[in-house]
Amino acid sequence: MRPSYSEVAREGDLVQLYGKSYKSHFIVLKHAQTLQTHRGVIAHDAIIGQKWGSCLYSHQGNPFYLMQPALVDILKNLKRNTQIMYPKDIGYVNMVMGIGPGQTVLEAGTGSGALTCAFAFLVGNEGRVISYDRKAEIQQLALQNLTKINLQDRVILKTREVELGFDEENVDAIFLDLPNPYDYLQIVERSLKPGGFFGTILPTVNQVSLTLKSLSQENFAFIEVCEIMLRFYKTDWERFRPTDRMIAHTGFLVFARSVLGIDPAIELPDPGE
Amino acid sequence: MRPSYSEVAREGDLVQLYGKSYKSHFIVLKHAQTLQTHRGVIAHDAIIGQKWGSCLYSHQGNPFYLMQPALVDILKNLKRNTQIMYPKDIGYVNMVMGIGPGQTVLEAGTGSGALTCAFAFLVGNEGRVISYDRKAEIQQLALQNLTKINLQDRVILKTREVELGFDEENVDAIFLDLPNPYDYLQIVERSLKPGGFFGTILPTVNQVSLTLKSLSQENFAFIEVCEIMLRFYKTDWERFRPTDRMIAHTGFLVFARSVLGIDPAIELPDPGE
Amino acid sequence: MRPSYSEVAREGDLVQLYGKSYKSHFIVLKHAQTLQTHRGVIAHDAIIGQKWGSCLYSHQGNPFYLMQPALVDILKNLKRNTQIMYPKDIGYVNMVMGIGPGQTVLEAGTGSGALTCAFAFLVGNEGRVISYDRKAEIQQLALQNLTKINLQDRVILKTREVELGFDEENVDAIFLDLPNPYDYLQIVERSLKPGGFFGTILPTVNQVSLTLKSLSQENFAFIEVCEIMLRFYKTDWERFRPTDRMIAHTGFLVFARSVLGIDPAIELPDPGE
Amino acid sequence: MRPSYSEVAREGDLVQLYGKSYKSHFIVLKHAQTLQTHRGVIAHDAIIGQKWGSCLYSHQGNPFYLMQPALVDILKNLKRNTQIMYPKDIGYVNMVMGIGPGQTVLEAGTGSGALTCAFAFLVGNEGRVISYDRKAEIQQLALQNLTKINLQDRVILKTREVELGFDEENVDAIFLDLPNPYDYLQIVERSLKPGGFFGTILPTVNQVSLTLKSLSQENFAFIEVCEIMLRFYKTDWERFRPTDRMIAHTGFLVFARSVLGIDPAIELPDPGE
Repeated sequence: MRPSYSEVAREGDLVQLYGKSYKSHFIVLKHAQTLQTHRGVIAHDAIIGQKWGSCLYSHQGNPFYLMQPALVDILKNLKRNTQIMYPKDIGYVNMVMGIGPGQTVLEAGTGSGALTCAFAFLVGNEGRVISYDRKAEIQQLALQNLTKINLQDRVILKTREVELGFDEENVDAIFLDLPNPYDYLQIVERSLKPGGFFGTILPTVNQVSLTLKSLSQENFAFIEVCEIMLRFYKTDWERFRPTDRMIAHTGFLVFARSVLGIDPAIELPDPGE
Repeated sequence: MRPSYSEVAREGDLVQLYGKSYKSHFIVLKHAQTLQTHRGVIAHDAIIGQKWGSCLYSHQGNPFYLMQPALVDILKNLKRNTQIMYPKDIGYVNMVMGIGPGQTVLEAGTGSGALTCAFAFLVGNEGRVISYDRKAEIQQLALQNLTKINLQDRVILKTREVELGFDEENVDAIFLDLPNPYDYLQIVERSLKPGGFFGTILPTVNQVSLTLKSLSQENFAFIEVCEIMLRFYKTDWERFRPTDRMIAHTGFLVFARSVLGIDPAIELPDPGE
Repeated sequence: MRPSYSEVAREGDLVQLYGKSYKSHFIVLKHAQTLQTHRGVIAHDAIIGQKWGSCLYSHQGNPFYLMQPALVDILKNLKRNTQIMYPKDIGYVNMVMGIGPGQTVLEAGTGSGALTCAFAFLVGNEGRVISYDRKAEIQQLALQNLTKINLQDRVILKTREVELGFDEENVDAIFLDLPNPYDYLQIVERSLKPGGFFGTILPTVNQVSLTLKSLSQENFAFIEVCEIMLRFYKTDWERFRPTDRMIAHTGFLVFARSVLGIDPAIELPDPGE
Repeated sequence: MRPSYSEVAREGDLVQLYGKSYKSHFIVLKHAQTLQTHRGVIAHDAIIGQKWGSCLYSHQGNPFYLMQPALVDILKNLKRNTQIMYPKDIGYVNMVMGIGPGQTVLEAGTGSGALTCAFAFLVGNEGRVISYDRKAEIQQLALQNLTKINLQDRVILKTREVELGFDEENVDAIFLDLPNPYDYLQIVERSLKPGGFFGTILPTVNQVSLTLKSLSQENFAFIEVCEIMLRFYKTDWERFRPTDRMIAHTGFLVFARSVLGIDPAIELPDPGE
């Protein structure tokens, strides 16, 4: 992903070609190459130099919109062999954990790399993402996904069980996307900068309860548990109304910050009150 | 805001001192200065060199946690004279509109500058935020807020009515935080890069309906309307449950992308189905 | 429906036989009759005298639970040719409109009769439900549904366009399940007892807005608009969590009460504040 | 509460006088009596014979609407010394548990009697509500509330600990509004008609999890856990939008039905899927 695109598609750009039946193709433009689709062939050279937002046509006459993909478009179309985090959750994680240019962020597990891609996008060229997973083949898929959007240089993938610990120290933020984060909080504390941000996502309340118990036994404060619910609306302006169905649950988000020496005189915030 | 903090607070760092009764102080550390609070005085020199996450004490013995603030902490404590956008909404806006390092983002109106701060944080040193508002005094407050967190260099504030048009062309994304975005869509199209991202937030359904009508009459596609609902939970692991009350409504988010030449053969996505 | 069931199923009882693959059969027990199912035959005489909650078997050995159906079970299994109201909405309508034994309730349109069944169940033997619909064939289905649960004697079905007016006066409550209730509010006022309850359900905000406009021009007060959202949880006690998907929208409920002589000195309640 | 009211208020009617500042008075009309309020005096004889929905005036000239109260109005204004169930939850409980005319319903504990009032209203003159609570003084308040709305004859209050068991057998439905329903499921089974309806409401997920565990160990099926969320909207038709805040949580509703002899070949419904 280029940081910012020009008005026209150029060689090296990651482009999204959005065609019929909601089908998208993501390619990096390269002179003399062609894109083969079920709806016909398009030469990269026929794309290079076209204005973004244009409607292009394959040799069979099928239309495609030429778009620069947003992070959310990439995440929705990621190759996956595991459940991936939803943009609604990633967006809020970024806000609470302060993810931005120049930071060092650690995550485990890598999974299909959706959150990895989001972190890599946001930390920019000066930042760094370290991602642990115990399965090498899963990390291969994440690496493919990162490479496709040209963010692989910002990410260090390590194949290792979390219980063996992390190599890093003083990272800005640690996110665990694992079933049992409550077992690894001391490992988190050793690698997290004091005052740093911890986050996790968990599907069941039983896991959340265990995590809250463990957090209360370690040096964490500013603990927060929440859910993000996203409700879409139908876009007919004369018949405006919510969609009939929605995703009701993806996971509970748990956040906390490591502290040194808890003083009970300080009341901690009770979010939502 | 330094991109990434070291293990200890250093001169020039933006720090949050979180004290009793949920009261936070945000200061940039400077040798020989002091922080005056209702709970006593702390010398900046007594903070410089301390580990993040430490509990420090004023001359009266009142405790404060030394924290590096996340974007969300800064936004919550922003000086304001207008309603500001909530982190839950900003987080999702960033995802859908692809805000990240190196981009050029335009917004109107500036208001108290919450979204301006978020955009400025995310676009990094290579990015740029241009923010219009018709009231100079409101922009003064936004400038104060930006300066406090040292992001003022990434932002260009312009005092002007939107109906007079924007100076910029080919910006990556435009966000309108105004009551009547439906009146300005042609102005948006002129300044937005083809294929670029448009977004707005509106409190009432009547405004959303008018905006959808206008969008359907201009060259926009990939229109999406949604709401983000954030539900907090009480963090007692033995009595885990949602909080009693919640924010039920902040605004409807409307997103669209400009396109050149709409081909009706392409079905557009219907989010949420 | 018998008002209250004995411990065993008796002739004349409406019973639910809940079998494999979530398939239910609703029958009124009658000596010497048989129930034919895709999973085998059961004689009514083999059901009469059995304890409720028992597991019975067809001649092919397929199991069925013998249950006395609740209103909600009947509604879920109603024959329908129109969208029917959901139990979550009907339950709240009953509370706000004070539906109970002995009352006279008017509705239009009848549709498949789900709300008709609910009203008929609740008004008891002394109550009365009058239901208008412009299509006779739709009312035939409602009549079948009412007869199946033996509540037909409490309901008077009238085939007529609402714009021609209702015959009744001074009814306790009127519910309109129609696309344009805003066109019929004067007709409602003529048939509703002063102080009586008006209710309607509408899928789009445009319809709600028009209805609110019309209500404000007639003699109605205590106006209330709400939505009922029902979130189910998976029932595994070790992995307790919300279901993945939910019904996001059925309709907006609008309630009001007719009044004689509005005094602006009386502040009306603002629900939800 | 009269089953159905005439067009005018009559002696013996329960009336609601809704005055300034959202203040309501509930009285049973009686010849020669007077109502004393902070906004002046009204003689009952000045109310008897007036049309419902009229605006009446005290001797000081303050206005009051004369309304026949719905169940929901009574519940909202109930005297209470405990948290009472919300109408949104009661309405759904009634639907799922099939509460209606002629039934026998048992509850524990009585609390301030909100659910008791609702059940008593719905079971009609032929029905019966038995309500247990271990505290006599709490039941006194419930009795006052029931007497005020003239439903006391349908309710039998018993002062006893639940662990001592219920006297009744074969009741149609049992609702436990207690912190630990999971301790009493065998007691429930002994008093509930086979196939009958069990329900409970619980604030925390920990309690729900324990209840689900216990239910899975007893003869219960058709287990369902849900939450009812009620979202109000502001009623300005030109600025239609949700209210800013809402009640986010009252309790989780748990429902089940007793069965005799569970056959694992029968798949039980998974609500919400």
